[in-house]
Order: sequence, then structure tokens, then C-alpha cells
Amino acid sequence: MTTQQLYEQIQHKKSFLCIGLDVDLNKVPQHLLETEDPIFEFNKAIIDATHDLCVSYKPNTAFYEAYGLKGWQSLEKTINYINEKYPDIFTIADAKRGDIGNTSSMYAKAFFEDLKFDSVTVAPYMGKDSVEPFLAFEDKHTIMLALTSNEGAFDFQTLKIDGRELYKQVIETSTEWKNSHRLMYVVGATKAEYLSEIREIIPNSFLLVPGVGAQGGSLEEVCKYGMNHHVGLLINSSRGVIYASKDHDFAEAARAEALKLQQQMQRILEEKEMQ
Amino acid sequence: MTTQQLYEQIQHKKSFLCIGLDVDLNKVPQHLLETEDPIFEFNKAIIDATHDLCVSYKPNTAFYEAYGLKGWQSLEKTINYINEKYPDIFTIADAKRGDIGNTSSMYAKAFFEDLKFDSVTVAPYMGKDSVEPFLAFEDKHTIMLALTSNEGAFDFQTLKIDGRELYKQVIETSTEWKNSHRLMYVVGATKAEYLSEIREIIPNSFLLVPGVGAQGGSLEEVCKYGMNHHVGLLINSSRGVIYASKDHDFAEAARAEALKLQQQMQRILEEKEMQ
Repeated sequence: MTTQQLYEQIQHKKSFLCIGLDVDLNKVPQHLLETEDPIFEFNKAIIDATHDLCVSYKPNTAFYEAYGLKGWQSLEKTINYINEKYPDIFTIADAKRGDIGNTSSMYAKAFFEDLKFDSVTVAPYMGKDSVEPFLAFEDKHTIMLALTSNEGAFDFQTLKIDGRELYKQVIETSTEWKNSHRLMYVVGATKAEYLSEIREIIPNSFLLVPGVGAQGGSLEEVCKYGMNHHVGLLINSSRGVIYASKDHDFAEAARAEALKLQQQMQRILEEKEMQ
Repeated sequence: MTTQQLYEQIQHKKSFLCIGLDVDLNKVPQHLLETEDPIFEFNKAIIDATHDLCVSYKPNTAFYEAYGLKGWQSLEKTINYINEKYPDIFTIADAKRGDIGNTSSMYAKAFFEDLKFDSVTVAPYMGKDSVEPFLAFEDKHTIMLALTSNEGAFDFQTLKIDGRELYKQVIETSTEWKNSHRLMYVVGATKAEYLSEIREIIPNSFLLVPGVGAQGGSLEEVCKYGMNHHVGLLINSSRGVIYASKDHDFAEAARAEALKLQQQMQRILEEKEMQ
């Protein structure tokens, strides 16, 4: 999928919502546990109930790996289901991978070729040759951690190098890498005011923004500082949407939460005359 | 496994060799491709041929994920085989994971509980709350990237914060985290001279050292600067050992390469009177 196609989908749905499919079997409705593949059944119901309100789904691989082989199978079924039934959706494998060159190539193969995700998240610590193998894939996107939404973000990401924070250095350096036009960045919503400075370095890139809702970030603030002329934002919500109810009505409840977010987004797009 | 047990194994085998099980189906002997699970068959033969010469095996998860569900199954069979047949071996899941707290807990569960590895490698970029969930597991070890052996290590890891390299800051900060005694560190062999400075910060920790052999590092140099009073080093070799031959004799050839490394290690241990 190209970023142009992603933008067209945003305009069409009046939404830039990404729903995080972080399925914890301790949190899904009890009755699903009796099915053969509760993780997939949960995802399928959530996806069917919300696909017209969001532009992206983002399964975090940790939640699948924790259930071993069965979990990996649920991940495979989930991505196949989305790709077959809702091919316009932008899919993100939230895997935060990164390794030396030939090894990163294997990860890229895993997520882009085997599982057929549109994008994958990567960690920047190992530098250029750990990320470029992902960037080699045409019409695929690599979403690099820049400034994350957790407390630990302040341990290293905001340390200053010659008066400038590491995360800014990471972003700036990455713009010089081969095929850097295929990069997107993770920027946590809990630091919305930082977004305008980030936009000075990468005015055109898409930003994946976690931390709205459960983690406390404000949608309005994020849009104020982070939106560009083709929106350029994917706002992620995971727990706030998918665990809206733990009962039989979980899919409807998820839809209701997703609808609230979509309507807020539509209002913002209308205000900015971007719809 | 405790670090004391690891040290005893090192003394017993006169080796601190870790063999990287990075299985690429394009590089394994042709005849294995006809078997039902070529990755596992390859690993099994390598393990049976080398288990008395090394103290650790380190499958890199990328090479398994690249083959999807079948690959994950091969990884599971490999770790189970080692744990059952050679329980004294220190196993490392080279996964380079790291995410916000509750998500890192899922990764820890995946590698420590589901797959029963002794240790897992993690990336430091997301800070304290991305690593501490791994450290909560008793008798398990978390091996954090500090200074890696690839070219990209110089992109961010060696940037200076108040005159001091980021990787040193990462190491020092991590020593204050809860259960930091369960931390080990990845330090590339290509920068052996940096090891003495690292030893000033963490004199007692085990270091996992990739980059000897194929990536050009020298074993003598690494030991000169990095060894401590209980050895404190795990030297990894992957391609140099496992792809020593692409023929029917691949396991014997791997043993011959592992033996060369073990004999060099024995000589060093004898010189230092540590055997």
C-alpha cells in the first residue's frame, strides 16, 4: 500500500484511527475461551465491528508469541483475515524488531513476505544497517521508534547530544538512509508539544501515535501539533477500544468506542478542511 | 540457571563458547531439505556434534520467524531438544525485544515460560519499564544490547552525552534497575579496546560477545580487556561454526571449528589460571 492510498482511505472514512489488537486471554469475554481459537475469534469480531471506522489494525506480536505456536497461528489467521476481507486496511506488525543487516532481512521477510503486513515497527538502537533491510521492500513501510509513550522514554530518548535530544538525532539521521521515504515514526501522544519540533525535521512523514486514551494523551493536542497537509497521523488505541466490554456485547462496545474516536477525528478533519 | 552454574559449566568444559543457531535454508546441506523439518534436523546434528565444546546455544528468532509457523515450530523443537538432552546448556533467545511494560511482560512470558529459555536479548531504547518486566523472572537472565558489532553501532550508540558515549550511559543507568543482577550485556568484539572501560562500570556482569570470527574480532583481545575473575564472557560464533561445510559432513566440520575455538579458550583459561 502506498501512503497516497492510505491518505485516500483516511479521507474516505474520515478517520485516522488505528486499532491495536493486543489480545490478552485474561481480558477477553469468558465465552470465547470455549472456542478453538479464542484470540482469532476475538479479533475477527472486533475487526468486523470496526473496519469502517478505522484505517489500520496493529497486532502487537508480544501478545501472540506469549501463547507460543498457537499464538503465532492466531496472528497468521488474523492478518490473513484482514488482507482477504478488508484489503484497504493498512496493517502494522507492532514487533519493534532490529538486528544486524542479514538478520533484519529475515525479519523483513517474516513480516512483509510471509505474513504480508503493510508495515512493521522497528527499534533504532543498532542504526542504519539494522533498518535499511526493511526499507528495501517496495510499497511496504517501516515505522521506527522515535519518542515512545512510556515512562522509560525519558531514560535515553530525551538525553541531549550537543544540546539536542537523542530522539531528534535518531529521526534526522534516519532521513539520510536509503529509501527513507518508506519510513514512518512512532511518537507518543503523551508529549504532544514535542510534535511541532518533530514536524520541523520530518514535515511529510506519517507518525504512528500511541498513548491517546488509556495512556492519557489528548487527540486535539496531537492533531494541533502533529497534523500535516495530508493528515500524516495514525492514532492508535488498543485497550480503550477492544476491552470496552468483557461481556457478550464486546464487539458492539468496541464499535461504540471506535465511533467516538472516529467522530472526534471527523470533526477535526472538517475544522481543518481536510475531509 | 544461575550465573554460578554457568561458571561451573565453563570450568568443566574449559570453554565459554556460545554457538549461534541462525539457520538459513539457503545455506544448509541440500540433503536436509528433503526431511520434514530441515531447520530442526540441522540444529539437532549441530548440537549433538558440539554440545561438549560449548556452554551455550543462541538461536536468533529472526531466522525462525522468516519461515512462519513452521519456523516457530522448529524453534520450539530446538529449545525443547536442548533442554531435555543437554540441560546444563545456557540457552539464549536472541530476540532483541523491548516494549512498554505490560507488553514486555508478554515477551518475557513467551521466552521464559512458554519456550523455557534461560535468557533473552533485549533492546534498551525504551528504557527501564521496557526491561524490568524481563528482570522479574528468577534464575532467568536478560541480555541487553550495549555496544553492538555492526557498522550502525556508530550511528547512535557512540554519540556522546556530556562527553560520554550513549552505550556507557545505557549500561550505567541499567545497573540501578530492579533486579539488575539478572542483567548481562551484548558487547561486540569488533571494539575490544572498549571492553576495559565497560568493565569499570560492570566488573561482575557476563558479556555476550558477538563478532569474533566472521565479523573480524579477535578472541585474545576480547579476553585481554573483557575477562573478569569468573570469566564473565560468552563468545558467540554463528556462521563460522555452523556453516563450516555445506556437505554431508557439516556436523563434523562444525565440531572441528568449535574445537578450534574451545582449544583457544582452554589455552587462555590456563594462562589466566582459571580452569
